[in-house]
Amino acid sequence: MQRYKCTVEYDGRPYHGWQYQDEVISVQKVFETALEKFIGEFVRVYVSGRTDAGVHAMGQVVHFDLPRYYPAEAVMNAINHHLKPDPVAVMDCREVDEDFHARFSSKKRYYMYRIINRRAPLTFESGLAWGIYKPLDIDAMNEAAQHLIGTFDFTTFRASECQANSPIKTLEKLMVKRCDHDPLEIRIFTESRSFLHHQVRNMVGTLVLVGKGSWKPIDVKKALDACDRKAGGPTSPADGLYFVKVDY
Amino acid sequence: MQRYKCTVEYDGRPYHGWQYQDEVISVQKVFETALEKFIGEFVRVYVSGRTDAGVHAMGQVVHFDLPRYYPAEAVMNAINHHLKPDPVAVMDCREVDEDFHARFSSKKRYYMYRIINRRAPLTFESGLAWGIYKPLDIDAMNEAAQHLIGTFDFTTFRASECQANSPIKTLEKLMVKRCDHDPLEIRIFTESRSFLHHQVRNMVGTLVLVGKGSWKPIDVKKALDACDRKAGGPTSPADGLYFVKVDY
Repeated sequence: MQRYKCTVEYDGRPYHGWQYQDEVISVQKVFETALEKFIGEFVRVYVSGRTDAGVHAMGQVVHFDLPRYYPAEAVMNAINHHLKPDPVAVMDCREVDEDFHARFSSKKRYYMYRIINRRAPLTFESGLAWGIYKPLDIDAMNEAAQHLIGTFDFTTFRASECQANSPIKTLEKLMVKRCDHDPLEIRIFTESRSFLHHQVRNMVGTLVLVGKGSWKPIDVKKALDACDRKAGGPTSPADGLYFVKVDY
Repeated sequence: MQRYKCTVEYDGRPYHGWQYQDEVISVQKVFETALEKFIGEFVRVYVSGRTDAGVHAMGQVVHFDLPRYYPAEAVMNAINHHLKPDPVAVMDCREVDEDFHARFSSKKRYYMYRIINRRAPLTFESGLAWGIYKPLDIDAMNEAAQHLIGTFDFTTFRASECQANSPIKTLEKLMVKRCDHDPLEIRIFTESRSFLHHQVRNMVGTLVLVGKGSWKPIDVKKALDACDRKAGGPTSPADGLYFVKVDY
């Protein structure tokens, strides 16, 4: 038996999220089907961070055990062959020890959220970013974001269906900046060991209230302190969210 | 009567090109339908450069005459409203004099071609770039490109169905460079008053032969001099081609 770690990119638009569910198409289902076509038997795939329906990944990480040894490059090429034409691709594959676990060995996860701030509806980026018509104040959003960095009870930004044991998380980074190569695009970068369910999307939805001028930056601090989901802003669309990478 | 000039962005994937054709969906059809919903009667739309099936536009230019006056911004917003959910959007609209013609007033057209040069199949960019597995030599491609700059008989790069009166064109720019913000992406920029049918895609297909090492840069000069389509490389896919902008 040999364990492999793969870095995976996917366009989340066609999928009901990462996790396998009966009767709908998931990235896990597509990936496990490709692996089964390669190996000839079912192989369970473990993921670093489950993504919701419509959420994308640039550097998702998975692991799985194959019953026989193959060179990592052969595994990558075979899976990519069998994944076609699905918009899911293995970017990197390597052999790892049996104590590596895509989820439990994760030390830090990185997410990015893309907003395209322009009058015209989205074309190429439809489903790949949140299109916002009203001009956003990036500086105010970034100022507000600083109130969320640190160790807090993030109940205000936690989905009701969240299964985490505790609402206390340590947010290491939350930065709002204009995209270097597209002045109409705003990118929000965030890093944490782990996130609550919908935490990034709920934080982004709240920061956008600040960007539109409906809230002041300090209102985000007050919302956090309230420890009440109803005190936070709306959940932003899945469209703009990208699972970027994992540190191990 | 008032003439309007619009700058239009579209994702070419769903369309059989710009031009209206019976029984298939075209960008022109979608645009004229949106305009008819706004105005209540059919309005003919004229384009700067017709694009083929699957070719994209970041800054296509069109003009049309409306029977009544509306502020340009109202025209833009109304067309964008009626274009939804098609991936076609008006980025800019302005009133112009009746001597403006989207096609005949064009002084220079700019195209870009995107290649993503990586092992993994494309996900987000599927249909939006040409995915090439084998590493390309960008410097050699750019060296080869310089042989095509100037006034020449471009028969070697002309589609057999091209309707231009003459195969002689003046190519002002043809530059191959690594994308500033993505090291796996190669962009080819070209400028000319006008292009022959498939000229850009045929030049790109030929430059890729150089990039792969199958041809030397000087072979592109020999192919040009042959004035024979069979001397040129293959036509590159529509996927990577973008109509960028027009000078008037």
